[in-house]
Amino acid sequence: MDAIIGSGTGPATDRTADTLASVGEFGVIAQITRDLVMSPQVSVGPGDDAAVFLVDGSAVTSTDLLVEGVHFRTDWSSAEEIGRKAVAVNVADLEAMGATPVSMVIGLGAPGSLPAQWVREFSTGVRMEADRAGICLVGGDTTGAREITICVTVIGQTEGRAPVLRSGARTGQVLAVKGRLGWAAAGLSVLERGFRSPRAAVDSQRVPRVPYGAGREAARAGATAMLDVSDGLLADLGHIADASRVVIDLDSARFEIDEPVRAVAAATGRDALGLVLAGGEDHALAACFEVGSVPDGWQVLGRVRDPEAEEGPTVLVDGKHWEGSAGWDHYRRG
Amino acid sequence: MDAIIGSGTGPATDRTADTLASVGEFGVIAQITRDLVMSPQVSVGPGDDAAVFLVDGSAVTSTDLLVEGVHFRTDWSSAEEIGRKAVAVNVADLEAMGATPVSMVIGLGAPGSLPAQWVREFSTGVRMEADRAGICLVGGDTTGAREITICVTVIGQTEGRAPVLRSGARTGQVLAVKGRLGWAAAGLSVLERGFRSPRAAVDSQRVPRVPYGAGREAARAGATAMLDVSDGLLADLGHIADASRVVIDLDSARFEIDEPVRAVAAATGRDALGLVLAGGEDHALAACFEVGSVPDGWQVLGRVRDPEAEEGPTVLVDGKHWEGSAGWDHYRRG
Repeated sequence: MDAIIGSGTGPATDRTADTLASVGEFGVIAQITRDLVMSPQVSVGPGDDAAVFLVDGSAVTSTDLLVEGVHFRTDWSSAEEIGRKAVAVNVADLEAMGATPVSMVIGLGAPGSLPAQWVREFSTGVRMEADRAGICLVGGDTTGAREITICVTVIGQTEGRAPVLRSGARTGQVLAVKGRLGWAAAGLSVLERGFRSPRAAVDSQRVPRVPYGAGREAARAGATAMLDVSDGLLADLGHIADASRVVIDLDSARFEIDEPVRAVAAATGRDALGLVLAGGEDHALAACFEVGSVPDGWQVLGRVRDPEAEEGPTVLVDGKHWEGSAGWDHYRRG
Repeated sequence: MDAIIGSGTGPATDRTADTLASVGEFGVIAQITRDLVMSPQVSVGPGDDAAVFLVDGSAVTSTDLLVEGVHFRTDWSSAEEIGRKAVAVNVADLEAMGATPVSMVIGLGAPGSLPAQWVREFSTGVRMEADRAGICLVGGDTTGAREITICVTVIGQTEGRAPVLRSGARTGQVLAVKGRLGWAAAGLSVLERGFRSPRAAVDSQRVPRVPYGAGREAARAGATAMLDVSDGLLADLGHIADASRVVIDLDSARFEIDEPVRAVAAATGRDALGLVLAGGEDHALAACFEVGSVPDGWQVLGRVRDPEAEEGPTVLVDGKHWEGSAGWDHYRRG
C-alpha cells in the first residue's frame, strides 16, 4: 500500500548495522518474538490477530506510554535498560492493585533509521524484566515513528483477592512503603549535570527496582488502600487522601534516607528529604494497613486520620503542608 | 519532578483555545473520562492504578500503535475520526479471533501545544466507536510527545468458543469476506491527490467500517481460520496460507468491485482489482468455511487447496501469482 508520508526522520544513528527499515516490519517482529516461551496460561501467543490466555478471578489491566525524551533518553540509558523500565513501571500498577501479573503486549514505534541491534537489546531487557516480574509477553505491534515510543499494556488477575483501591484508607491506619524513595530523582539530578555516579542512584533512574510480589503480600495482609509511587510520594499519596477522604500525616523522623540519595543531595545542594518526598519514578508501593498488620520489609512512615473541621483531605509532613514542588505533569514538563 | 527535556515542539496549532499544557495532565484525563459509563462487567474503571473487570472464558488481547503522519494526518482527518479509527482497527483484531469485545485502554501522547479541544473531539470519537463495537473504555495514560501517538489495547472474551486462528484453513474449504475491500486505499489515493471525493471512499480511509459482530458469527458458523484485512487482502491471506500450509486461490470473477473503488480507479488510472487485492486499512474479515456453511452477508471469493508438488503455501488469483504490489511495511513506508 502507499505510504501516507515519506520516511520518518529519526535521530542520527549507526548506519553500519542493519536498521529497522532494512530488516522490515516482519523482521523486527521476528527478532522480538524469537524463542519466546509462553506460560501454561497462554494458549495463543504472538503471531495471530490477538493473544489468548486464561485469567483466574477478575482481569486487571493498565497501560503506560513511554516516549523518548520524556521518559527516557537513549544517551542516558541503554536499549536493554529502556526495555526493562518499560515493563517495570507498568507491572508496578498491577502490584499496586494487589494483582498477580499474567500477560503483556507492547507497541513499539521507532524511526526506520534505528539500528535493528537497538531493538534486539530492548527486547532482551523486556524479557529480563518480564521474568523478574513473572509476566509473559504475548503480543504487540510495531510501526514507524519519529521518536522511539513504547506502549506497554499489562493484564493481571485477582485470584480471589479483592483489588486494593486508592479509596480504602481509614482513620487509625498506618501508611507504609516498600521499595526505594528518592533514588530515581537523585539519579536524574546527577544525569542532568552530566555525571554518572553515584551509580546506584543513576541505575535506579534507568531501571526502577519495583518490589515485585509486595502488592499481593500487602493485599493478603489486609491493606485497604495502595498505589505505586510514580509521580512523587506526596503527589501520589494525595490521590489516596482524595479518594479516601482522609488526611495522611507523614512523620519525617521515620524516613530512613538511603545513602545514594543523601550523597546526591549533599553534592548538588538539594534537600534530601525533598528528593524522597517529591521525587518520582521509583515505583515503590505505598499502602494503608491496620496497626500491627504491616508485613515485614514495609516501612511505616505515617498515619491516617479524618480531616478536621474545614481541613479537607490532604497529605501533611509532621502535621504541616510541605513547602516546595510535589509532583510532575507530563505536558508542562517541569 | 524535573523534566528530562524541555517542552516538545508540536505542529503549529490554534493557540486561541486551551492547550494540553494549560489544562495539564489531570485536566486532560478528566476530559477524557467525564461521564464515562462502565458496563456491568467492569468493577473498577478509570482513576485507580489499573482497571478491573470480569472475563467470560479465555481473555483475548491485541494492541495497536497509531502515529501521526504514519496512520493518520490531522489535516486529512478530524480528531473525532482519528478517535473512531483507533478503536475500530483494534477491535477488528478481536473480531478476527471470533471474540466478544469487553474492555479497552488507551495511551495518548501529544504535544503540549495541542488544543485541548482536539482531545475532547478525539474522546468523542473513541466513545462513538466503542459504543458501536460494544467495548468499554476502562483506563489509559496520557503523556507529552512530539507527534500525536495513540496506543489502543483491547481485551475480549471467548465465551466458550474456540478462538479462530490463522492456522486452521483446510483443503476443500471456501474463502469468504465480510466488509469493504479497496475503499480505504481508494480514499487514500484521492487524498494524496488533494481531493476529497468520492466522499464514501475518503470516509472509509478516515474511519474503516469494521463489520462488528461478524467475527462471532463466523466462529459460530464453524470458521476454522480468520483474520482482518489490514495490510491488503493478498498480503493478509498470505498469513493464513503460511500458517495453514495451504494454497488460497481467488476467483477474480467473484469480486464485486464497489462503485467508489471503480470511480477512483477510473479517475486515477489505477487498476480497480489492484485496489481491492492490495489495498489495506478496510479491516474486512476474511475467513475459511466448509462449503455450505458460509453465513449470509459473507462473499465467497475463492477456495482452499493443498499445495501441489514443490508449490508451497501461497495465494493465487485465477490460479496465477498476482503481478504488482501486495502489501505494506510500516518501516519502509511504500
